[in-house]
Amino acid sequence: MKAKIYITYKEGILDPEGNTVKRALKSMGFETLDTVQFGKYIEMTFNGVTKEKAELLTDDACRKLLANHNTQSYTFEVTDE
Amino acid sequence: MKAKIYITYKEGILDPEGNTVKRALKSMGFETLDTVQFGKYIEMTFNGVTKEKAELLTDDACRKLLANHNTQSYTFEVTDE
Repeated sequence: MKAKIYITYKEGILDPEGNTVKRALKSMGFETLDTVQFGKYIEMTFNGVTKEKAELLTDDACRKLLANHNTQSYTFEVTDE
Repeated sequence: MKAKIYITYKEGILDPEGNTVKRALKSMGFETLDTVQFGKYIEMTFNGVTKEKAELLTDDACRKLLANHNTQSYTFEVTDE
């Protein structure tokens, strides 16, 4: 089972990397660019578990380690790749 | 237009963050965990452009700034959100 996890900053949290990249792209001529938000993309694979179990494990990993609940939110999808 | 960009390390490139997180989760009891790969997730929005133009701009931004071609590969999708 393969889990794809997307972690982003919550609304209102400063995103310095996104702001820096936005400024850089603007200065490079990307005039129609409006917003840039940086986050993390994590792929995890599990052996010998059902899709439901993989979803539970992924959610657990996000809550216990990967995401900072104060500043970040996460979504994920599990596929049987 | 909204672009969602996923940047990951190419096959064979050392992923220290992924390795560290894998070790941490294993020690926390995630025994069925097999692999962990870390990457970046970037959301960009554009004003007043077609989907085709937004795709060209996103690819351009990846090639010229966001991805390191030596070590990283990228994929993206553009939606009219």
